[in-house]
Amino acid sequence: MERIYNFSAGPAVLPQEVLEQARDEMLNWQGCGMSVMEMSHRGKEFMGIAAQAEADLRELMAIPANYKVLFLQGGASTQFAMVPMNLLRGKKSADYVNTGEWSKKAIKEAKKFGAVNVVASSEDANFSYAPTQDKWKLDSDAAYVHYTPNETIGGVEFNWIPETSGVPLVADMSSNILSRVIDVSKFGLIYAGAQKNIGPAGLTIVIVRDDLIGETIAGTPSMMDYKIHAENESMYNTPPTYGIYMAGLVFRWLKHNGGLVKMEANNVAKAKLLYDCLDASNFYHCPTAKENRSRMNVPFTLKDAALDEAFLKEAKARGLVQLKGHRSVGGMRASIYNAMPIDGVKALVALMNDFEKSHG
Amino acid sequence: MERIYNFSAGPAVLPQEVLEQARDEMLNWQGCGMSVMEMSHRGKEFMGIAAQAEADLRELMAIPANYKVLFLQGGASTQFAMVPMNLLRGKKSADYVNTGEWSKKAIKEAKKFGAVNVVASSEDANFSYAPTQDKWKLDSDAAYVHYTPNETIGGVEFNWIPETSGVPLVADMSSNILSRVIDVSKFGLIYAGAQKNIGPAGLTIVIVRDDLIGETIAGTPSMMDYKIHAENESMYNTPPTYGIYMAGLVFRWLKHNGGLVKMEANNVAKAKLLYDCLDASNFYHCPTAKENRSRMNVPFTLKDAALDEAFLKEAKARGLVQLKGHRSVGGMRASIYNAMPIDGVKALVALMNDFEKSHG
Repeated sequence: MERIYNFSAGPAVLPQEVLEQARDEMLNWQGCGMSVMEMSHRGKEFMGIAAQAEADLRELMAIPANYKVLFLQGGASTQFAMVPMNLLRGKKSADYVNTGEWSKKAIKEAKKFGAVNVVASSEDANFSYAPTQDKWKLDSDAAYVHYTPNETIGGVEFNWIPETSGVPLVADMSSNILSRVIDVSKFGLIYAGAQKNIGPAGLTIVIVRDDLIGETIAGTPSMMDYKIHAENESMYNTPPTYGIYMAGLVFRWLKHNGGLVKMEANNVAKAKLLYDCLDASNFYHCPTAKENRSRMNVPFTLKDAALDEAFLKEAKARGLVQLKGHRSVGGMRASIYNAMPIDGVKALVALMNDFEKSHG
Repeated sequence: MERIYNFSAGPAVLPQEVLEQARDEMLNWQGCGMSVMEMSHRGKEFMGIAAQAEADLRELMAIPANYKVLFLQGGASTQFAMVPMNLLRGKKSADYVNTGEWSKKAIKEAKKFGAVNVVASSEDANFSYAPTQDKWKLDSDAAYVHYTPNETIGGVEFNWIPETSGVPLVADMSSNILSRVIDVSKFGLIYAGAQKNIGPAGLTIVIVRDDLIGETIAGTPSMMDYKIHAENESMYNTPPTYGIYMAGLVFRWLKHNGGLVKMEANNVAKAKLLYDCLDASNFYHCPTAKENRSRMNVPFTLKDAALDEAFLKEAKARGLVQLKGHRSVGGMRASIYNAMPIDGVKALVALMNDFEKSHG
């Protein structure tokens, strides 16, 4: 079988050109006689790869000089603990916005380390929307405000950046980092697991403002201290070297393809194709509030859930996989990250139209 | 340039056959149309890869059924904290043996979570030997006894397993796991960063006896709780999927090449070539006590440190790299893990003999 269209929510599709380069360099990176996996992280070859990856990410996101960029391990789940351990800084509580499963997990973990105020929630409507800021009950003494700009399960994305009046804003951007232009200076800390828009699972990127790090709660392991990682340029211990290399290839691919301005335009176009198809149909239904529809994850249900299996079977026959929705929403979910080509979305829309004709 | 011989202490050389298979499968794993990096960790393809990797590791090491095998992130440095957080279990202190830089780091981190008794140390002789057990002052009330069976910097390896009279024995086997046959049932917990004898950096394997997990100290992050990882079969969050795949390929390679019995015989033969060369010479010197010479990491100095640069230059010209020793020992260090072919060691010995002739 040829390459298929993979709509997985993560780990997810990677750019084919990136995989081809990784394949070609697997046994011998740029004539050095070694695989990147075999390189000492202290050697000049890998130090160069890591430095270039950081420089390219800084350029792509226009990251200001007073922000550190860290390449860590552990995924967003580790950040759920590291954020309070490092950012409470003697304050009593932090504010959290609850817009879905990932927000809930962040909240649950943060409660181990301090008081959490849930300042807004969309749980009343099965996490199908993002509460507008006039509904948020922010505490001006909070250590930070945490939110999830894109929820992969509900397919809910913020199309605005919250205003927190000087309280550091913390964002779990695991599922929409690099998919749109954002102003990093509006954030205190951004974190993202790599396995959606960056590279392979096992790498986590943290972008944090200098002045927020250095004060941890008692009993914080060294590996969970941002300051230690920052002072050691993410080499306090052996970093996930191959993941950093792959992320670097993805950053290069983004740069060669027009950067985030072009990527955002592509993502708008891809999402429009799919939402237009959903809106034109009485057979399919998208549960998400229109103003919060995610460009990355598009959940939808069929008129009759009994048809789900037939839809998935037909999808697979056409080389479209990983479309089954999360059990909390049901139906289907199409994740269309940066690396999903527009032809993949077109193939999905064609399937949806054909299936509606034959089963509607 | 062709592939070279890479004597790096870690990340380190991988079997060429494994890299070739990874290359060939990069864009399309076994006809499924996806790279392993792109697979959902909950999909049947990756679940199969992970289950096979665990089964093969269990077979290779004859791991008893009452031990969990965990595939985690963070390296040995994260284990330095997780071990006390999980294994103190209400006890006041733990016993640590100090035989080098890695022991020291484990001790320093453990002190954040409880009292540490250093029950034996070789710091008096620049960590050039392993203290015999009659020198250990073990505490029968200790929560556990921690030691480092192989120290990569000093090149010191234990050729015996400590007897701890029922106190759980914990071993950082990062640099010698899978290099020899061991009796897992003598250990309470074994951990190993992958980047020496297992696979790429960013994966850590933990083998832990069932009855030791489930009681953590207050404030332990979920991601640092062995019980949570065990109950979720290492999928509490997205695991380092590609690292697990590569580890699985290495386990297969080990099985196809005679398992640990054959690997140990190879390692004995490789180490003998190098130590025989050192012993036959007055030009080279190995600082390690003979009875504790590591089969994995062989440090040696030249008669005149002023010749080090010339030696490294000549080595590089012959395609032998990463031979520079750690600054605390000086001279050279040859790491000859499982994946280093005997021809690489022969090439190094030939260089050493030639260099002695021309500079001795």
